[in-house]
Amino acid sequence: MPRQQPDRNRINRHKERGHYDTETIHAILDQAKICHVGFNMDGQPFVIPMAFARQGNSLLLHGAPNSRLLGQLASGFPVCVTITHLDGLVLARSTFHHSMNFRSVVAFGTARPVNDLEEKHAALIALTEHLTPGRTTLARAATDQEVMATAVVRFEIEEASAKVRRGPPLDSPKDRQLDVWAGVIPIHSVEGEPIPAPDLKPELCTQEPVKPA
Amino acid sequence: MPRQQPDRNRINRHKERGHYDTETIHAILDQAKICHVGFNMDGQPFVIPMAFARQGNSLLLHGAPNSRLLGQLASGFPVCVTITHLDGLVLARSTFHHSMNFRSVVAFGTARPVNDLEEKHAALIALTEHLTPGRTTLARAATDQEVMATAVVRFEIEEASAKVRRGPPLDSPKDRQLDVWAGVIPIHSVEGEPIPAPDLKPELCTQEPVKPA
Repeated sequence: MPRQQPDRNRINRHKERGHYDTETIHAILDQAKICHVGFNMDGQPFVIPMAFARQGNSLLLHGAPNSRLLGQLASGFPVCVTITHLDGLVLARSTFHHSMNFRSVVAFGTARPVNDLEEKHAALIALTEHLTPGRTTLARAATDQEVMATAVVRFEIEEASAKVRRGPPLDSPKDRQLDVWAGVIPIHSVEGEPIPAPDLKPELCTQEPVKPA
Repeated sequence: MPRQQPDRNRINRHKERGHYDTETIHAILDQAKICHVGFNMDGQPFVIPMAFARQGNSLLLHGAPNSRLLGQLASGFPVCVTITHLDGLVLARSTFHHSMNFRSVVAFGTARPVNDLEEKHAALIALTEHLTPGRTTLARAATDQEVMATAVVRFEIEEASAKVRRGPPLDSPKDRQLDVWAGVIPIHSVEGEPIPAPDLKPELCTQEPVKPA
Protein backbone atom coordinates (compact mmCIF):
# COMPACT_ATOMS: atom_id res chain seq x y z
CA MET A 1 0.00 0.00 0.00
CA PRO A 2 1.31 3.47 -0.84
CA ARG A 3 2.32 5.32 2.31
CA GLN A 4 0.56 8.51 3.32
CA GLN A 5 1.97 11.71 1.87
CA PRO A 6 5.49 10.44 1.21
CA ASP A 7 8.12 13.13 1.07
CA ARG A 8 9.63 12.47 -2.37
CA ASN A 9 6.16 12.38 -3.79
CA ARG A 10 4.43 15.15 -1.85
CA ILE A 11 2.32 17.46 -4.01
CA ASN A 12 3.76 20.90 -3.29
CA ARG A 13 1.98 22.89 -5.98
CA HIS A 14 -1.81 22.96 -5.75
CA LYS A 15 -1.93 20.74 -2.67
CA GLU A 16 -5.72 20.54 -3.05
CA ARG A 17 -5.15 18.49 -6.21
CA GLY A 18 -3.10 15.82 -4.40
CA HIS A 19 -4.49 12.40 -3.51
CA TYR A 20 -2.69 9.63 -1.66
CA ASP A 21 -5.39 6.99 -1.27
CA THR A 22 -5.01 3.62 -2.95
CA GLU A 23 -8.49 3.72 -4.50
CA THR A 24 -7.86 6.95 -6.43
CA ILE A 25 -4.37 5.87 -7.46
CA HIS A 26 -5.43 2.42 -8.68
CA ALA A 27 -8.41 3.80 -10.61
CA ILE A 28 -6.13 6.18 -12.53
CA LEU A 29 -3.64 3.38 -13.22
CA ASP A 30 -6.29 0.91 -14.36
CA GLN A 31 -7.77 3.30 -16.91
CA ALA A 32 -4.43 3.76 -18.66
CA LYS A 33 -2.89 1.55 -21.32
CA ILE A 34 0.64 2.94 -21.24
CA CYS A 35 2.91 4.37 -18.60
CA HIS A 36 6.15 6.34 -18.77
CA VAL A 37 8.99 4.58 -16.99
CA GLY A 38 11.89 6.68 -15.72
CA PHE A 39 15.28 5.43 -14.53
CA ASN A 40 18.96 6.34 -14.64
CA MET A 41 21.72 4.79 -16.62
CA ASP A 42 25.17 6.21 -15.83
CA GLY A 43 23.62 9.46 -14.61
CA GLN A 44 21.49 9.89 -17.71
CA PRO A 45 17.73 9.86 -17.12
CA PHE A 46 15.67 7.74 -19.50
CA VAL A 47 11.89 7.92 -19.91
CA ILE A 48 10.42 5.05 -21.90
CA PRO A 49 6.75 4.50 -22.79
CA MET A 50 5.60 0.98 -21.99
CA ALA A 51 2.43 -1.06 -21.87
CA PHE A 52 1.61 -2.21 -18.35
CA ALA A 53 -0.91 -4.00 -16.17
CA ARG A 54 -1.46 -3.47 -12.47
CA GLN A 55 -1.40 -6.53 -10.22
CA GLY A 56 -2.12 -5.63 -6.62
CA ASN A 57 0.38 -2.93 -5.75
CA SER A 58 2.80 -3.65 -8.56
CA LEU A 59 2.95 -2.89 -12.25
CA LEU A 60 3.90 -5.57 -14.75
CA LEU A 61 6.10 -4.55 -17.68
CA HIS A 62 7.51 -6.63 -20.50
CA GLY A 63 9.92 -6.48 -23.37
CA ALA A 64 12.61 -8.24 -25.31
CA PRO A 65 14.74 -10.63 -23.23
CA ASN A 66 18.07 -8.94 -24.01
CA SER A 67 16.75 -5.39 -23.84
CA ARG A 68 19.40 -3.09 -22.41
CA LEU A 69 16.74 -0.84 -20.91
CA LEU A 70 14.69 -3.62 -19.35
CA GLY A 71 17.84 -5.09 -17.86
CA GLN A 72 18.80 -1.77 -16.31
CA LEU A 73 15.24 -1.23 -15.12
CA ALA A 74 15.17 -4.53 -13.26
CA SER A 75 18.56 -4.11 -11.62
CA GLY A 76 17.11 -2.76 -8.37
CA PHE A 77 17.86 0.94 -8.88
CA PRO A 78 15.15 3.51 -8.09
CA VAL A 79 12.44 3.75 -10.75
CA CYS A 80 9.66 6.28 -11.28
CA VAL A 81 6.56 5.34 -13.25
CA THR A 82 4.12 8.04 -14.31
CA ILE A 83 0.65 7.70 -15.83
CA THR A 84 -1.26 10.67 -17.22
CA HIS A 85 -4.76 11.14 -18.60
CA LEU A 86 -5.33 14.49 -20.30
CA ASP A 87 -9.05 15.18 -19.80
CA GLY A 88 -9.51 18.68 -21.10
CA LEU A 89 -8.20 22.09 -22.06
CA VAL A 90 -9.26 24.77 -19.59
CA LEU A 91 -9.79 28.11 -21.28
CA ALA A 92 -9.95 31.10 -18.95
CA ARG A 93 -10.71 34.71 -19.89
CA SER A 94 -7.04 35.47 -19.21
CA THR A 95 -4.23 33.46 -20.80
CA PHE A 96 -2.59 33.39 -17.35
CA HIS A 97 -5.39 31.22 -15.90
CA HIS A 98 -5.49 28.74 -18.77
CA SER A 99 -4.99 25.24 -17.47
CA MET A 100 -5.57 21.57 -18.19
CA ASN A 101 -7.85 19.00 -16.63
CA PHE A 102 -5.94 15.82 -16.01
CA ARG A 103 -5.46 12.80 -13.77
CA SER A 104 -1.92 11.62 -13.13
CA VAL A 105 -0.09 9.21 -10.88
CA VAL A 106 3.60 9.37 -10.04
CA ALA A 107 4.84 6.14 -8.46
CA PHE A 108 8.24 5.40 -6.96
CA GLY A 109 9.70 1.99 -6.34
CA THR A 110 12.04 -0.64 -7.66
CA ALA A 111 11.68 -3.34 -10.27
CA ARG A 112 12.83 -6.94 -10.35
CA PRO A 113 12.83 -9.50 -13.14
CA VAL A 114 10.14 -12.17 -13.12
CA ASN A 115 11.89 -15.43 -14.00
CA ASP A 116 9.47 -18.11 -12.82
CA LEU A 117 7.75 -19.57 -15.87
CA GLU A 118 4.28 -19.82 -14.33
CA GLU A 119 4.50 -16.29 -12.90
CA LYS A 120 5.59 -15.02 -16.34
CA HIS A 121 2.68 -16.78 -18.05
CA ALA A 122 0.29 -15.15 -15.56
CA ALA A 123 1.92 -11.74 -15.99
CA LEU A 124 1.65 -11.83 -19.78
CA ILE A 125 -1.99 -12.91 -19.56
CA ALA A 126 -2.61 -9.99 -17.18
CA LEU A 127 -0.99 -7.61 -19.67
CA THR A 128 -3.12 -8.81 -22.58
CA GLU A 129 -6.27 -8.80 -20.45
CA HIS A 130 -5.59 -5.29 -19.17
CA LEU A 131 -5.23 -3.91 -22.70
CA THR A 132 -7.94 -6.02 -24.35
CA PRO A 133 -10.23 -7.61 -21.74
CA GLY A 134 -11.44 -11.04 -22.80
CA ARG A 135 -8.85 -11.41 -25.54
CA THR A 136 -6.94 -14.31 -23.99
CA THR A 137 -10.02 -16.55 -24.30
CA LEU A 138 -9.93 -16.00 -28.09
CA ALA A 139 -6.28 -15.73 -29.14
CA ARG A 140 -3.85 -18.63 -29.12
CA ALA A 141 -2.17 -18.81 -25.71
CA ALA A 142 1.57 -18.25 -25.47
CA THR A 143 3.77 -21.33 -25.48
CA ASP A 144 6.48 -21.85 -22.86
CA GLN A 145 9.03 -21.04 -25.55
CA GLU A 146 7.34 -17.73 -26.33
CA VAL A 147 7.14 -16.84 -22.66
CA MET A 148 10.83 -17.68 -22.25
CA ALA A 149 11.52 -15.35 -25.19
CA THR A 150 9.91 -12.45 -23.30
CA ALA A 151 11.36 -10.52 -20.38
CA VAL A 152 8.91 -9.61 -17.64
CA VAL A 153 9.62 -7.06 -14.93
CA ARG A 154 7.59 -6.38 -11.80
CA PHE A 155 7.69 -2.79 -10.56
CA GLU A 156 6.69 -2.70 -6.91
CA ILE A 157 5.10 0.61 -5.91
CA GLU A 158 6.66 1.87 -2.68
CA GLU A 159 5.16 5.35 -2.71
CA ALA A 160 2.67 6.97 -5.03
CA SER A 161 0.53 10.03 -5.32
CA ALA A 162 -2.16 11.19 -7.69
CA LYS A 163 -2.80 14.69 -8.92
CA VAL A 164 -6.19 15.59 -10.35
CA ARG A 165 -7.60 18.80 -11.81
CA ARG A 166 -11.26 18.91 -12.76
CA GLY A 167 -13.82 21.55 -13.52
CA PRO A 168 -14.08 25.01 -15.04
CA PRO A 169 -11.46 27.77 -15.32
CA LEU A 170 -10.84 29.93 -12.25
CA ASP A 171 -10.59 33.51 -13.44
CA SER A 172 -10.00 36.45 -11.15
CA PRO A 173 -13.22 38.33 -10.24
CA LYS A 174 -12.25 41.29 -12.45
CA ASP A 175 -11.58 39.07 -15.50
CA ARG A 176 -14.99 37.39 -15.17
CA GLN A 177 -16.52 40.58 -16.57
CA LEU A 178 -14.60 40.27 -19.85
CA ASP A 179 -16.49 39.38 -23.01
CA VAL A 180 -14.38 36.30 -23.67
CA TRP A 181 -15.63 32.72 -23.92
CA ALA A 182 -14.41 30.60 -21.02
CA GLY A 183 -14.89 26.93 -20.26
CA VAL A 184 -13.48 23.51 -20.92
CA ILE A 185 -12.80 21.63 -24.15
CA PRO A 186 -13.02 17.98 -23.07
CA ILE A 187 -10.50 15.50 -24.46
CA HIS A 188 -11.34 11.83 -24.73
CA SER A 189 -9.40 8.79 -25.82
CA VAL A 190 -11.77 6.74 -27.98
CA GLU A 191 -11.52 3.43 -29.79
CA GLY A 192 -12.39 3.49 -33.47
CA GLU A 193 -13.96 0.82 -35.65
CA PRO A 194 -11.77 -2.32 -35.65
CA ILE A 195 -9.73 -2.77 -38.84
CA PRO A 196 -9.41 -6.46 -39.84
CA ALA A 197 -5.93 -7.62 -40.85
CA PRO A 198 -5.53 -7.68 -44.68
CA ASP A 199 -4.90 -11.43 -44.56
CA LEU A 200 -7.82 -12.22 -42.22
CA LYS A 201 -10.06 -15.02 -43.50
CA PRO A 202 -13.14 -13.24 -44.91
CA GLU A 203 -15.56 -15.26 -42.81
CA LEU A 204 -13.85 -13.97 -39.64
CA CYS A 205 -14.21 -10.28 -40.48
CA THR A 206 -17.52 -9.98 -38.62
CA GLN A 207 -16.17 -11.67 -35.45
CA GLU A 208 -15.86 -9.58 -32.32
CA PRO A 209 -12.17 -8.76 -31.65
CA VAL A 210 -12.70 -9.22 -27.94
CA LYS A 211 -15.19 -11.30 -26.01
CA PRO A 212 -17.83 -9.12 -24.39
CA ALA A 213 -17.52 -9.35 -20.60
CA MET B 1 19.14 19.64 -35.14
CA PRO B 2 19.13 16.17 -33.64
CA ARG B 3 22.27 14.27 -34.55
CA GLN B 4 22.10 11.12 -36.62
CA GLN B 5 21.59 7.90 -34.69
CA PRO B 6 22.99 9.07 -31.36
CA ASP B 7 24.28 6.33 -29.13
CA ARG B 8 22.29 7.00 -25.96
CA ASN B 9 19.19 7.16 -28.06
CA ARG B 10 19.78 4.43 -30.60
CA ILE B 11 16.77 2.19 -31.20
CA ASN B 12 18.09 -1.29 -30.45
CA ARG B 13 14.83 -3.21 -30.48
CA HIS B 14 12.92 -3.19 -33.78
CA LYS B 15 15.48 -1.02 -35.54
CA GLU B 16 13.10 -0.70 -38.49
CA ARG B 17 10.82 1.38 -36.25
CA GLY B 18 13.52 3.96 -35.51
CA HIS B 19 13.60 7.41 -37.10
CA TYR B 20 16.19 10.10 -36.58
CA ASP B 21 15.10 12.81 -39.01
CA THR B 22 13.98 16.18 -37.72
CA GLU B 23 10.78 16.19 -39.79
CA THR B 24 9.44 12.96 -38.26
CA ILE B 25 10.51 13.98 -34.76
CA HIS B 26 9.01 17.47 -34.94
CA ALA B 27 5.72 16.18 -36.38
CA ILE B 28 5.30 13.78 -33.45
CA LEU B 29 6.16 16.53 -30.96
CA ASP B 30 3.81 19.07 -32.53
CA GLN B 31 0.82 16.75 -32.40
CA ALA B 32 1.17 16.23 -28.65
CA LYS B 33 -0.15 18.45 -25.87
CA ILE B 34 1.79 16.96 -22.99
CA CYS B 35 5.22 15.44 -22.53
CA HIS B 36 6.80 13.38 -19.77
CA VAL B 37 9.89 15.06 -18.35
CA GLY B 38 12.49 12.88 -16.64
CA PHE B 39 15.37 14.02 -14.44
CA ASN B 40 17.28 13.03 -11.33
CA MET B 41 17.16 14.54 -7.91
CA ASP B 42 19.69 13.03 -5.47
CA GLY B 43 19.79 9.80 -7.48
CA GLN B 44 16.00 9.44 -7.56
CA PRO B 45 14.44 9.56 -11.03
CA PHE B 46 11.37 11.77 -11.43
CA VAL B 47 8.95 11.67 -14.37
CA ILE B 48 6.54 14.60 -14.45
CA PRO B 49 3.81 15.26 -17.04
CA MET B 50 3.94 18.81 -18.39
CA ALA B 51 2.35 20.93 -21.09
CA PHE B 52 4.87 22.06 -23.68
CA ALA B 53 5.36 23.87 -26.96
CA ARG B 54 8.15 23.31 -29.47
CA GLN B 55 10.14 26.34 -30.60
CA GLY B 56 12.74 25.39 -33.18
CA ASN B 57 14.76 22.64 -31.60
CA SER B 58 13.75 23.34 -28.03
CA LEU B 59 10.72 22.61 -25.90
CA LEU B 60 9.22 25.31 -23.69
CA LEU B 61 7.95 24.26 -20.27
CA HIS B 62 6.41 26.34 -17.52
CA GLY B 63 5.32 26.16 -13.93
CA ALA B 64 5.22 27.90 -10.60
CA PRO B 65 8.20 30.19 -9.92
CA ASN B 66 9.32 28.45 -6.73
CA SER B 67 8.67 24.92 -7.98
CA ARG B 68 11.26 22.52 -6.58
CA LEU B 69 11.01 20.33 -9.66
CA LEU B 70 11.24 23.14 -12.19
CA GLY B 71 14.24 24.53 -10.35
CA GLN B 72 15.99 21.17 -10.45
CA LEU B 73 15.02 20.69 -14.08
CA ALA B 74 16.63 23.97 -15.11
CA SER B 75 19.84 23.44 -13.21
CA GLY B 76 21.74 22.09 -16.20
CA PHE B 77 21.63 18.38 -15.35
CA PRO B 78 20.73 15.86 -18.06
CA VAL B 79 17.03 15.72 -18.86
CA CYS B 80 14.98 13.27 -20.93
CA VAL B 81 11.66 14.33 -22.45
CA THR B 82 9.37 11.69 -23.93
CA ILE B 83 6.22 12.13 -26.00
CA THR B 84 3.93 9.23 -26.87
CA HIS B 85 0.84 8.87 -29.04
CA LEU B 86 -0.96 5.56 -28.63
CA ASP B 87 -2.61 4.96 -32.02
CA GLY B 88 -4.03 1.48 -31.74
CA LEU B 89 -4.18 -1.94 -30.17
CA VAL B 90 -2.77 -4.61 -32.46
CA LEU B 91 -4.57 -7.93 -32.01
CA ALA B 92 -2.78 -10.95 -33.47
CA ARG B 93 -4.07 -14.53 -33.64
CA SER B 94 -1.51 -15.39 -30.95
CA THR B 95 -1.23 -13.44 -27.70
CA PHE B 96 2.55 -13.44 -28.22
CA HIS B 97 2.28 -11.22 -31.32
CA HIS B 98 -0.12 -8.70 -29.80
CA SER B 99 1.33 -5.22 -30.04
CA MET B 100 0.51 -1.53 -30.09
CA ASN B 101 0.61 1.05 -32.82
CA PHE B 102 2.26 4.20 -31.52
CA ARG B 103 4.48 7.15 -32.30
CA SER B 104 6.97 8.24 -29.68
CA VAL B 105 9.92 10.58 -29.35
CA VAL B 106 12.64 10.31 -26.73
CA ALA B 107 14.72 13.50 -26.51
CA PHE B 108 17.85 14.13 -24.48
CA GLY B 109 19.26 17.50 -23.55
CA THR B 110 19.49 20.08 -20.84
CA ALA B 111 17.19 22.83 -19.68
CA ARG B 112 17.84 26.40 -18.64
CA PRO B 113 15.56 28.97 -17.06
CA VAL B 114 14.16 31.72 -19.29
CA ASN B 115 14.47 34.94 -17.29
CA ASP B 116 14.19 37.66 -19.93
CA LEU B 117 10.72 39.20 -19.66
CA GLU B 118 10.11 39.52 -23.40
CA GLU B 119 11.33 35.98 -24.05
CA LYS B 120 9.05 34.74 -21.28
CA HIS B 121 6.06 36.58 -22.76
CA ALA B 122 6.79 34.98 -26.14
CA ALA B 123 7.24 31.54 -24.59
CA LEU B 124 3.93 31.68 -22.75
CA ILE B 125 2.14 32.86 -25.89
CA ALA B 126 3.73 29.92 -27.76
CA LEU B 127 2.48 27.53 -25.07
CA THR B 128 -1.10 28.83 -25.24
CA GLU B 129 -1.04 28.85 -29.05
CA HIS B 130 0.32 25.32 -29.22
CA LEU B 131 -2.46 23.98 -27.01
CA THR B 132 -5.27 26.19 -28.35
CA PRO B 133 -4.32 27.79 -31.68
CA GLY B 134 -5.78 31.28 -32.05
CA ARG B 135 -6.65 31.61 -28.38
CA THR B 136 -4.23 34.45 -27.59
CA THR B 137 -6.11 36.77 -29.97
CA LEU B 138 -9.26 36.27 -27.83
CA ALA B 139 -8.15 35.93 -24.20
CA ARG B 140 -6.73 38.75 -22.12
CA ALA B 141 -2.96 38.84 -22.58
CA ALA B 142 -0.71 38.17 -19.61
CA THR B 143 0.56 41.21 -17.71
CA ASP B 144 4.25 41.62 -16.87
CA GLN B 145 3.37 40.79 -13.27
CA GLU B 146 1.70 37.53 -14.31
CA VAL B 147 4.65 36.59 -16.50
CA MET B 148 7.04 37.33 -13.64
CA ALA B 149 4.88 35.02 -11.48
CA THR B 150 5.53 32.14 -13.90
CA ALA B 151 8.71 30.13 -14.31
CA VAL B 152 9.65 29.25 -17.88
CA VAL B 153 12.24 26.65 -18.80
CA ARG B 154 13.74 25.99 -22.22
CA PHE B 155 14.73 22.38 -22.86
CA GLU B 156 17.23 22.26 -25.70
CA ILE B 157 17.13 18.98 -27.62
CA GLU B 158 20.65 17.64 -28.10
CA GLU B 159 19.72 14.20 -29.38
CA ALA B 160 16.38 12.67 -30.22
CA SER B 161 14.88 9.68 -31.89
CA ALA B 162 11.41 8.61 -32.86
CA LYS B 163 9.93 5.14 -32.76
CA VAL B 164 6.86 4.34 -34.82
CA ARG B 165 4.79 1.20 -35.23
CA ARG B 166 1.98 1.19 -37.78
CA GLY B 167 -0.14 -1.37 -39.54
CA PRO B 168 -1.62 -4.80 -38.99
CA PRO B 169 -0.49 -7.62 -36.69
CA LEU B 170 2.35 -9.84 -37.87
CA ASP B 171 1.43 -13.41 -37.05
CA SER B 172 3.59 -16.40 -37.85
CA PRO B 173 2.53 -18.22 -41.06
CA LYS B 174 1.17 -21.15 -39.07
CA ASP B 175 -0.97 -18.92 -36.82
CA ARG B 176 -2.53 -17.17 -39.82
CA GLN B 177 -4.60 -20.30 -40.37
CA LEU B 178 -6.29 -20.00 -36.97
CA ASP B 179 -9.94 -19.01 -36.81
CA VAL B 180 -9.27 -15.97 -34.64
CA TRP B 181 -10.07 -12.36 -35.50
CA ALA B 182 -6.93 -10.30 -36.06
CA GLY B 183 -6.48 -6.64 -36.80
CA VAL B 184 -6.17 -3.23 -35.23
CA ILE B 185 -8.45 -1.34 -32.86
CA PRO B 186 -7.58 2.29 -33.59
CA ILE B 187 -7.29 4.74 -30.68
CA HIS B 188 -7.90 8.43 -31.19
CA SER B 189 -7.67 11.44 -28.94
CA VAL B 190 -10.72 13.58 -29.71
CA GLU B 191 -12.03 16.91 -28.46
CA GLY B 192 -15.59 16.91 -27.16
CA GLU B 193 -18.22 19.64 -27.24
CA PRO B 194 -16.93 22.73 -25.38
CA ILE B 195 -18.47 23.18 -21.90
CA PRO B 196 -19.02 26.86 -21.06
CA ALA B 197 -17.94 27.95 -17.57
CA PRO B 198 -20.91 28.04 -15.14
CA ASP B 199 -20.38 31.78 -14.63
CA LEU B 200 -20.01 32.62 -18.34
CA LYS B 201 -22.25 35.49 -19.49
CA PRO B 202 -25.17 33.77 -21.30
CA GLU B 203 -24.69 35.84 -24.46
CA LEU B 204 -21.14 34.47 -24.77
CA CYS B 205 -22.11 30.80 -24.65
CA THR B 206 -22.38 30.55 -28.43
CA GLN B 207 -18.95 32.18 -29.04
CA GLU B 208 -16.21 30.03 -30.54
CA PRO B 209 -13.64 29.12 -27.84
CA VAL B 210 -10.81 29.55 -30.30
CA LYS B 211 -10.52 31.63 -33.42
CA PRO B 212 -10.66 29.48 -36.57
CA ALA B 213 -7.33 29.69 -38.40
